[in-house]
Amino acid sequence: MPELQDGQALAKVKYLSMDPTMRVWMAVDSYLPAVAIGEVMRAGGLAEIVESRHAQFKTGEKVFGLTGLQDYTIIEAQSKIAFQKIPSIPFVSETAFLGVLGLTGLTAYFGMTEIAKPQKGETLVVSAAAGATGSVAGQIGKIHGCRVVGIAGTDEKCAWLRDELGFDAAINYKHAHWKEKLAAATPNGIDIDYENVGGEIMEEVLSRMNLHGRVVLCGLISGYTKESTGPANLGLLIVKRLKIEGFLILDYASRFTEGAMELGKWKMMGKLKDRQTVVEGLEKAPEAINMLFTGGNIGKLIVKV
Amino acid sequence: MPELQDGQALAKVKYLSMDPTMRVWMAVDSYLPAVAIGEVMRAGGLAEIVESRHAQFKTGEKVFGLTGLQDYTIIEAQSKIAFQKIPSIPFVSETAFLGVLGLTGLTAYFGMTEIAKPQKGETLVVSAAAGATGSVAGQIGKIHGCRVVGIAGTDEKCAWLRDELGFDAAINYKHAHWKEKLAAATPNGIDIDYENVGGEIMEEVLSRMNLHGRVVLCGLISGYTKESTGPANLGLLIVKRLKIEGFLILDYASRFTEGAMELGKWKMMGKLKDRQTVVEGLEKAPEAINMLFTGGNIGKLIVKV
Repeated sequence: MPELQDGQALAKVKYLSMDPTMRVWMAVDSYLPAVAIGEVMRAGGLAEIVESRHAQFKTGEKVFGLTGLQDYTIIEAQSKIAFQKIPSIPFVSETAFLGVLGLTGLTAYFGMTEIAKPQKGETLVVSAAAGATGSVAGQIGKIHGCRVVGIAGTDEKCAWLRDELGFDAAINYKHAHWKEKLAAATPNGIDIDYENVGGEIMEEVLSRMNLHGRVVLCGLISGYTKESTGPANLGLLIVKRLKIEGFLILDYASRFTEGAMELGKWKMMGKLKDRQTVVEGLEKAPEAINMLFTGGNIGKLIVKV
Repeated sequence: MPELQDGQALAKVKYLSMDPTMRVWMAVDSYLPAVAIGEVMRAGGLAEIVESRHAQFKTGEKVFGLTGLQDYTIIEAQSKIAFQKIPSIPFVSETAFLGVLGLTGLTAYFGMTEIAKPQKGETLVVSAAAGATGSVAGQIGKIHGCRVVGIAGTDEKCAWLRDELGFDAAINYKHAHWKEKLAAATPNGIDIDYENVGGEIMEEVLSRMNLHGRVVLCGLISGYTKESTGPANLGLLIVKRLKIEGFLILDYASRFTEGAMELGKWKMMGKLKDRQTVVEGLEKAPEAINMLFTGGNIGKLIVKV
C-alpha cells in the first residue's frame, strides 16, 4: 500500500456495480471520457474506509463512488466525482445502495417521475424489465396506478416480474408470437415506454403507442455490442404526437437524496422488491459484464470482491 | 350542378394546396382515414361561394377548407371539417391563406413556439428549408434571435434562403462534402432541429446536437415514398439528453387565429417572406404532388384550378 498523503483516504472495495453503461465507457467518449487501454476500468462500487487522513471519512465507514474495478481505491481530498457515505438503515442491506437505492434505482425513479409522469390507469411497458433499472421502473408504475407490462428474455424472469413484483403481464421476447402476446397484454395500447433496449423491441412497442405517449429513453442495450438502426416507424411520432426523451441520471445528482428517500420509503412499505445476482471474485468482473448483454442476470448484477 | 339542399353551399375551387401529407393520406389510415380508391382525393383549397342555402356563407365569400381535388365542392350545414372564411387584408394575397398564413405557416408557428421554444443565440437547423413550412420555421427562428441554417436540395433554393429570407447559411445536401459544410455552418453545434425529412439528413443533424437539444418532428418526407429506417445514432438522445417530439397542426386548431395574427403581423412588418410555386390546371395536380418529393417546388406549392 502506498503511504497516504494528507487529505487522502484508503478504501477497500467490497462490492462492484456492473452496469450496461460500462460498455459505453469502454467504447467512446460520451457523457464521460472513454476509459483508455491500460487505465483501471471505471465502475461504481461500495468500499470501506481502512485508513484515513481525509477530514470527511473515518476508518470503518462505508462509501459509494466510482471505485473502479480494483481491490482498493484512494479517495482524494477533492475528487471530481465524490464518494458518498452509506447510511446504516435497519433491514436494508448495504448492497441495496448499489441497486434499488443506488444509481439504477434512482435512474428508474427520475426517469419515471420526471419524464414519464405516469397517470393512474395508463399502460406502461418496460423493456429489459428484469434488469436493475427496469424492475424498479415497473414497480414505480404500479405504485402510480398503471397497468404494467414487462418485456424480458427468459420465462424465469417473466415469472419473477409477474409473481413477485406484481407486474400485470410479462412477455418473453424470445418466444414465437411475442408480438401478439404484447398486443394481448396491452388491450388499451401503450401510454409509456420505459425503453432500455431499442431495436426491434422498441419498434414493436412504438407501434402500439397511444396518442401523446411518452418514450423514456433510458438505454439502448441492443445496440451497445452490435450495429443497429433506429426504429423504422418513427413517423408514428408525428401521427400519434409522441415524445422520445433521453436522460442521464447524473443530471439529477442534486436530488439523489430526495429520490433515495422516496425509494427507501417504498422499500420499507414493501412496495418495492429487489433482487441481486452476485458474482464472487474481482477476477470474474469481465465475464460478469457480459452477462448484462446475454441476459444472464436477474435484478442488480454485483461483483463481490 | 346538383340542386342545393337547405343548409348547403356550393363553392368553386380556385386554388389547391399541395402538401406532403397527401402522400400519407393516400397510403394508410393515420390521423385521418386513408382516401379510398374512387373517392375524391383529399386536399386543402381556397374556394369562392357561388350559391348558398347555408346560414354562414354568402355568395362571393372566399373560404378555406378540405375542398378535395375537384372544381366544385359542396359545403354541408355541419361538415365535420369546417370551412373558414378568408378575411380580406390589404397587401396580403388570398393565396397567402394556403401558405404562410395557412396550415403550413401555422405548422411552422406552433412547431417553433410550442415545441422548439427557441432562445436567443441558439442554433436552429431546418431540413426541407425551402419548403412551405421549413421556410417559415427558419424565419421564425431568425425573429427569435437564433442562428439559422437551412438544408435544401438545389443551389437556387439555398440562395433564396440566404439572400431573401436572411438564413445565416444554407447547405445543398446534394453537394459532396455537405456534411462538412453543415459542420462549418454550425460551429457551436445545433440546439434545435426542425425536422421535415428524416433519414440520412436527420441522422447527420442529430450527430451535431448540443446537450438538451430539441428535435421538432414535423415531417419525414424522405420516408414517404420509400422504405426507410430510423437514425442509427439514437443513443445520442441519452448521452446528449435530447428530446424528439412529433406533432400535428390539427391539435392547435383552437389557436389558429392567434397563430395567423402573429404570422400576419410579422408578414406586414416584412419579417416574414414567402414564395409560391403555382401550377396551372386541376389536371396537373397529380404531377404537382410529385414535385414535393422530387424537390421541384420552392415555397408553397399551389395548383390554380
